[in-house]
Amino acid sequence: MNFNKDTKVLIVGLGLIGGTYAEALSDKGYTVGAIDKRAESIDFALNKGWITEGRTENDSEFIAGFDLVIFALYPHIFLEWLSENQGALKPGTLLTDVTGVKSSVVYKVQDMLRGDLEFIGAHPMAGREMSGVEFANKEIFKGANYIVTPTEKNTEAAIETAEELGRVLGFKTISRLSPEEHDEMIGFLSQLTHVIAVALMVCKDSTKLADYTGDSFRDLTRIAKINDAMWSELFLLNKEELLKQIDIFSDKLEELRECIATDDAETMRAMMRLSKERRGFFDKPTK
Amino acid sequence: MNFNKDTKVLIVGLGLIGGTYAEALSDKGYTVGAIDKRAESIDFALNKGWITEGRTENDSEFIAGFDLVIFALYPHIFLEWLSENQGALKPGTLLTDVTGVKSSVVYKVQDMLRGDLEFIGAHPMAGREMSGVEFANKEIFKGANYIVTPTEKNTEAAIETAEELGRVLGFKTISRLSPEEHDEMIGFLSQLTHVIAVALMVCKDSTKLADYTGDSFRDLTRIAKINDAMWSELFLLNKEELLKQIDIFSDKLEELRECIATDDAETMRAMMRLSKERRGFFDKPTK
Repeated sequence: MNFNKDTKVLIVGLGLIGGTYAEALSDKGYTVGAIDKRAESIDFALNKGWITEGRTENDSEFIAGFDLVIFALYPHIFLEWLSENQGALKPGTLLTDVTGVKSSVVYKVQDMLRGDLEFIGAHPMAGREMSGVEFANKEIFKGANYIVTPTEKNTEAAIETAEELGRVLGFKTISRLSPEEHDEMIGFLSQLTHVIAVALMVCKDSTKLADYTGDSFRDLTRIAKINDAMWSELFLLNKEELLKQIDIFSDKLEELRECIATDDAETMRAMMRLSKERRGFFDKPTK
Repeated sequence: MNFNKDTKVLIVGLGLIGGTYAEALSDKGYTVGAIDKRAESIDFALNKGWITEGRTENDSEFIAGFDLVIFALYPHIFLEWLSENQGALKPGTLLTDVTGVKSSVVYKVQDMLRGDLEFIGAHPMAGREMSGVEFANKEIFKGANYIVTPTEKNTEAAIETAEELGRVLGFKTISRLSPEEHDEMIGFLSQLTHVIAVALMVCKDSTKLADYTGDSFRDLTRIAKINDAMWSELFLLNKEELLKQIDIFSDKLEELRECIATDDAETMRAMMRLSKERRGFFDKPTK
């Protein structure tokens, strides 16, 4: 499959991320269709001009009309959809996704898939603290990272199409990682940070605290407004890796606690200087 | 002392916070002087019109010319300055500060102070990841919190002057807390969050991670660009309280880890829902 302006793109799951894909792709001149069980989501996107056609049911004839299908669903719904509807896909259709965990999804999908279809995993590293197509905004992809997770079952052509999709969507840095590398990275950078934010937020009753806080607590807990259904599923699907990352962090926290308990200012200051130096690599690039 | 436009204000320590006080007060028409050992800082503020006069030495005659003195120094330097220079202060002068810890400072200052002077502690809950008067910007006080920490040695007049100062500077919410309540609050909201950010930032070499990250890791580590001299001093001056707060957080982190390890999605989701609900109280008020 060549990815160009004639490619017909289907988005399955028109929530915040699916909706943002629809917005960004239609804006670049691509023909986009969507399936979502919520009629209001389809109507919203039609009204915005982000999609030209939509369905609230898995209509086989409709599904057969697309060349590239992007899944923006919860992992278990993604797998269910495929086992029930892959028969409707046109031979040669390329499938990709936006799922936040990879090892536990990519291999299952590739194993169950018809031989004349190909699935290439991808993960857009962007989001918002809200759910629903109504909050879609393609600006969140600008300057952000996009990771493609090929396996040995993938063709170079499919990998390149997924990378091109990331560029068309507006991402700044496109990377390739194996599903395992992805899960380690995301266990640390994204899942661990959500675990920390939730743990911090449940420590104390917060009704009074807001009058005394500075920005640091707000920063650390922005992501504490968490979608519990989605994140609990993602955490458990990356359980082994996430537990490892929590333990790495807990060890460092304990090291710092020990410095404080023993008045070891020198070691503490060395950790702080390393922290400052390393944080320098993360300053968001100018767009 | 009545706080009004005739009040002559001296700022001792013209760094980021001292400089921001000078900017905000001069902007409102107050006469501000400053002492800082760094000549460039004095020159910068004079040039901006934030101060009308400055000194790089502790000139007794100069010090005697002010009614309200604000200390924006590291805690140990603040105590040193007082023991060496309080003799120069005019009888009836009111002293206040911006120090980030209170129990370990306020009582010492009040105990050592001449009987004809009064010290009222205060803590502006705002800052930036940079040091120095060159980065001062009074916008950081807008919508932010300001805490006054009276003891039984304080007069109501002095407490009200400190509160009025907070309002003049542009803070949105002005609160009174005992030094002990302040230290518990700040141990949790500010010091613990800095401990977490540093621990997270030193976990791994970060040169490659920046290509894969989303915004959550950036948010949690913004404050990881830490001033090691200042924060190590603040941590150790609030040691008992900070250790307590680290332990409260570690227990919650361990609870969440246990949910993940045992596939206990229900308990995890309940924590996430509580987290989401509590975070609602922290949304920054519109200015």
